[in-house]
Amino acid sequence: MKKITAKFGGSSLASAAQFRKVGAILAADPDRRFVVASAPGKRDSGDTKVTDLLYRCYDLAAAGEEYLPVLDAIRARFADIAGELGASFDVEAELAPIREHLAAAPRRDYMASRGEYLNSRLLAAWLGWPFVDAASCVRFRSDGSFDADATQTLLSQALSGLDRAVVPGFYGADETGRVVTFSRGGSDVSGSLVARAVGADLYENWTDVSGVLFTDPRIVKNPIPIPYITYRELRELSYMGASVLHEDAVFPVRRAGIPINIRNTNRPEDPGTMIVAALPEGVTPPPVTGVAGRKGFSSVLVEKSMMNAEVGFGARLLDIFAEKGVPFEHCPTGIDTMSVVVSESLFTPHKAEVLAAVEARLKPDSVKLEEGLAMIAVVGCGMVANKGIAARILGAVTAAGVNIRMIDQGSSELNIIIGVREEDYETAIRGLYKEFHQ
Amino acid sequence: MKKITAKFGGSSLASAAQFRKVGAILAADPDRRFVVASAPGKRDSGDTKVTDLLYRCYDLAAAGEEYLPVLDAIRARFADIAGELGASFDVEAELAPIREHLAAAPRRDYMASRGEYLNSRLLAAWLGWPFVDAASCVRFRSDGSFDADATQTLLSQALSGLDRAVVPGFYGADETGRVVTFSRGGSDVSGSLVARAVGADLYENWTDVSGVLFTDPRIVKNPIPIPYITYRELRELSYMGASVLHEDAVFPVRRAGIPINIRNTNRPEDPGTMIVAALPEGVTPPPVTGVAGRKGFSSVLVEKSMMNAEVGFGARLLDIFAEKGVPFEHCPTGIDTMSVVVSESLFTPHKAEVLAAVEARLKPDSVKLEEGLAMIAVVGCGMVANKGIAARILGAVTAAGVNIRMIDQGSSELNIIIGVREEDYETAIRGLYKEFHQ
Repeated sequence: MKKITAKFGGSSLASAAQFRKVGAILAADPDRRFVVASAPGKRDSGDTKVTDLLYRCYDLAAAGEEYLPVLDAIRARFADIAGELGASFDVEAELAPIREHLAAAPRRDYMASRGEYLNSRLLAAWLGWPFVDAASCVRFRSDGSFDADATQTLLSQALSGLDRAVVPGFYGADETGRVVTFSRGGSDVSGSLVARAVGADLYENWTDVSGVLFTDPRIVKNPIPIPYITYRELRELSYMGASVLHEDAVFPVRRAGIPINIRNTNRPEDPGTMIVAALPEGVTPPPVTGVAGRKGFSSVLVEKSMMNAEVGFGARLLDIFAEKGVPFEHCPTGIDTMSVVVSESLFTPHKAEVLAAVEARLKPDSVKLEEGLAMIAVVGCGMVANKGIAARILGAVTAAGVNIRMIDQGSSELNIIIGVREEDYETAIRGLYKEFHQ
Repeated sequence: MKKITAKFGGSSLASAAQFRKVGAILAADPDRRFVVASAPGKRDSGDTKVTDLLYRCYDLAAAGEEYLPVLDAIRARFADIAGELGASFDVEAELAPIREHLAAAPRRDYMASRGEYLNSRLLAAWLGWPFVDAASCVRFRSDGSFDADATQTLLSQALSGLDRAVVPGFYGADETGRVVTFSRGGSDVSGSLVARAVGADLYENWTDVSGVLFTDPRIVKNPIPIPYITYRELRELSYMGASVLHEDAVFPVRRAGIPINIRNTNRPEDPGTMIVAALPEGVTPPPVTGVAGRKGFSSVLVEKSMMNAEVGFGARLLDIFAEKGVPFEHCPTGIDTMSVVVSESLFTPHKAEVLAAVEARLKPDSVKLEEGLAMIAVVGCGMVANKGIAARILGAVTAAGVNIRMIDQGSSELNIIIGVREEDYETAIRGLYKEFHQ
């Protein structure tokens, strides 16, 4: 019998109707045996997430102000779901320790974690599954940092005797039992940790989109989901701004070789996106897997005749940026030119100093600063086999009327990075989508 | 009245017939008033250049062997030209000091310079123009390095009173009168120095091709000559292996803003190539000015997850190459990858050490070495205005069936660098020629 760890996001557990969808998904495959639950999310665009209500409640309590009306709104969310489902879940009894905590010395992480806690208790009660509290088996150190090794041991022990279980996402606790939340990645990280601890065959991440999208849906309407994507491709898209799983949520299962399946709770018939170490046999990679990008880059173009003859010139140029703690993104080099592409927000505070140091130390013929650049990563492990792909990519951007300011493709051949003016960014992305999916 | 400095190469002055062509070229434009002459080159593919004969003569003399037959062959070359032209040129009298030199203590530079010396004497005699010896006005320091400032002063003085003159190329002398030859660029450098010293309006460089060719004629049959090329474009093509004027020959006139015209002595009706600081008004740059490339590159691909988060990673990587004195040509960067492209001949002696240092200091996830790469520079100042040019370039290479291993285009937009496997190099060049000129 296989083991699937299924994590359900906030929108997947926002209401009784959504709970029923989750119930049906679990019933559809008995291998789905370990569930990680988020707090109830928004039911519609005007709604407030339970976690945000909890933060508000904490802020009011910490400021000595009236928080009971907010707590009551939280109670109502859970009471509504439980009532509608007919679940045997005593909301008032569950809220009692929270009321006591608020009246005594409220802690932010503890309060923030209660959405996941209560929702998981409710889900476990409704399903009739055991509940395992993350506070007992997701371990943080006393300095607040996450302890991966202790967590792997504790979670494995806690879940080893269980055929199935519901575990709340987003939080854990230190040795004293003090609750600590994940600063990045939230319940996605918890799901990944549970999948690794139980040695899952698959980590399903149920959300409200049918997978990782080919590109930003704010730019292209209804972009297709990506059927298969490698961890590395995902990381590249993610780094360049794609809104996908946080790296911290990928790392535990990636290390264990467990594939991730991003699924849509509202369209369980959709296969979603499989995130894998390598494409399974028989699956041919498309020419381009996905496209992501970001605005807010600057390029510092240094020209110096006979630059190539000065061994160490490039290292000294990059050193100037490193000294100021400014990471560089790319450094395209011509014969007598070298550009350093940096994130504007990280560069701007040091701009004057860096430019002055370049002038003083490298004695260049000229230094030109170009601001307002956007960088687009066109990612795909299929590029290696597809000789014409780089030409098609540039052709598509050009056909969209966009002037390409910079191109960078390294030997890894996993991506091509294109620099364009910020005002051309959306046009370029749409041109790329049109070329590969319309 | 304008001043043109005309330098004639070895093939342009290889025989009496070639001398007559040079005479006609000078007669056709009275502005051609300062001539720099090379030694007689090959008259046909089986012939030997006079300078090579002179080296052979020196080698024999220095080894204490019989050199008189070689000296006699040299004598015959000049006697033949002078006789056929009917020039009043006493070859024996001119050879006397050379014979004395050889019998005493032969010096390599002095012997090498005699081809230019004798040919210029002969040309001046035949034209009835003054002869100005480069030994008196092209100045080297006692350590053998060239003294540009002293030369400018001395050459200006020597030529200022003259309406026209013939100056031998390739050599000069130190303060003691000891002859020193240019190590690079030869007579092209001399021509450039004379053009600058007389404040020429134009530096004509007469050779046996009708200009700078679009690409390597060994790869593409009869490539078109480039009508206009900027100094910077020329330098980029030259750096990447195009056989054009040496940088040292461009520098003096570039600094003085004197354009260079590469012309064909055998086809004086061809306009040749104008090398300029900027294209004259009304001249539209073509999408691509020229294509050059070289084999013999390696790429060191370093992969490390979260590399971007390590400020200074790139600088530290390049530092390792700089410490070993290995200049890098390009460093295309991905999200978690950085490649360093280096010349194989410079890298190979340090390969093991560099790779070990990369492993030890940067703790990368992987380091991959790819050898046998060729780099192609597609150069053109017209790329800025031509949005589609990058796509056309990659499309042409792809259509030729070549897999592109690397692309690098910086903000300067003067070129695109493409990396391909060495075995694909010629195919890629032919594909580019076909795209832009067939």
